[in-house]
Amino acid sequence: MKNKKEKAVILLSGGLDSTTCIALANEQKFELYALTVNYGQKHNFEIEASKHIAKEYNVERHTIIQIDLAQFGGSALTDDKIKVPKKRNLSESQSIPVTYVPARNTILLSLAIAWAETLGAYNIFIGVNSLDYSGYPDCRPEYISSFEKTANLATKSGINGQKVKINTPLINLTKQEIIKIGLSLNVNYGLTSSCYDPIISGDPCGECDACYLRLKGFKSTSIEDPLNYPK
Amino acid sequence: MKNKKEKAVILLSGGLDSTTCIALANEQKFELYALTVNYGQKHNFEIEASKHIAKEYNVERHTIIQIDLAQFGGSALTDDKIKVPKKRNLSESQSIPVTYVPARNTILLSLAIAWAETLGAYNIFIGVNSLDYSGYPDCRPEYISSFEKTANLATKSGINGQKVKINTPLINLTKQEIIKIGLSLNVNYGLTSSCYDPIISGDPCGECDACYLRLKGFKSTSIEDPLNYPK
Repeated sequence: MKNKKEKAVILLSGGLDSTTCIALANEQKFELYALTVNYGQKHNFEIEASKHIAKEYNVERHTIIQIDLAQFGGSALTDDKIKVPKKRNLSESQSIPVTYVPARNTILLSLAIAWAETLGAYNIFIGVNSLDYSGYPDCRPEYISSFEKTANLATKSGINGQKVKINTPLINLTKQEIIKIGLSLNVNYGLTSSCYDPIISGDPCGECDACYLRLKGFKSTSIEDPLNYPK
Repeated sequence: MKNKKEKAVILLSGGLDSTTCIALANEQKFELYALTVNYGQKHNFEIEASKHIAKEYNVERHTIIQIDLAQFGGSALTDDKIKVPKKRNLSESQSIPVTYVPARNTILLSLAIAWAETLGAYNIFIGVNSLDYSGYPDCRPEYISSFEKTANLATKSGINGQKVKINTPLINLTKQEIIKIGLSLNVNYGLTSSCYDPIISGDPCGECDACYLRLKGFKSTSIEDPLNYPK
């Protein structure tokens, strides 16, 4: 328990991981500043989800910032010409998936440190996870640790001696472990959205990599995923 | 001279430094991809300038990407509540100026590496300069070198073995030296815009830090700045 509440900036996509992350930051009694980036993802239903989650955690402020990464293309998540893959066997896949968005986490984290600096916040939370998606280069611990060093050279805070910390509480957890932690903190996963290619209602497709990993995670917990999947 | 033209992404603000940078990249026979970020700067006349410069250098593509950093505030360049300082004596100033935009270069560079990755470009050019503005933490060589390491962990290119290079040809030069190099490459400085607070016509104010440094630089070259300053 802290005397005067310290501020934390939480990157909140609206998915399962970032929601568990905000629950953990909340448990640690940080004053919560949620940052959602609308980067032109096709699955922008998650932006709506982020609003409900920010409200649920009674955040001090929720900033939604827009940047159209579809201008660069190169990812199934932003580029209309690249289809979101369905029914893949992820345990067999080794290479970087087409859903990888070039430099996304560096962009997200750079925005987070910018806001943190104006807020006087020294803690950033990001729900990256290196186990499920070993193919995403910017989810690895060595990347995060290097970004943290860069952040401390990039900003006033670094120069003034107070260090910025990039918190990645989920980085070494399986999806099952993440869900268990979330449930122990009463996370309402019904508010979250993980699907890369939701159907028009916003319900998940059940077949993309994100749905696959989420469903596999829930299956191993004996709790049912509260989202509404196609029968 | 390269056989097959290599691509380079050049961060092009439309100012004197980034224009000298694109002239240098052009001299090195790179295929030019100019990236301009409209980040909510009050002096967005420079965006117009960047279009003319991109045309002058016959770039392969010019991407202008929009992101409203004014949502975070905290800088005289984006925040309406903070005035752009005028008539300062920069040689006496030691602290970080209010024109510093939190984490701006990290945001710009992260966008540049994202685009570079989709283009298959391994060279980024940024016109940072550590001499004139020792107060900007993200213009220092140690910052750039740390960002380069992070970039190579963040992206596919890094994993695949081909390294991304952050080129900072102006980092240790004085404004006078930069202008001399630019003039030797026939840079048309009349197309550039440096002022933080231009008057309505787009002409420079002549009194902000950016004008001060630019005018001082030209003064020491015996060439007259082609821009139209107030009498």
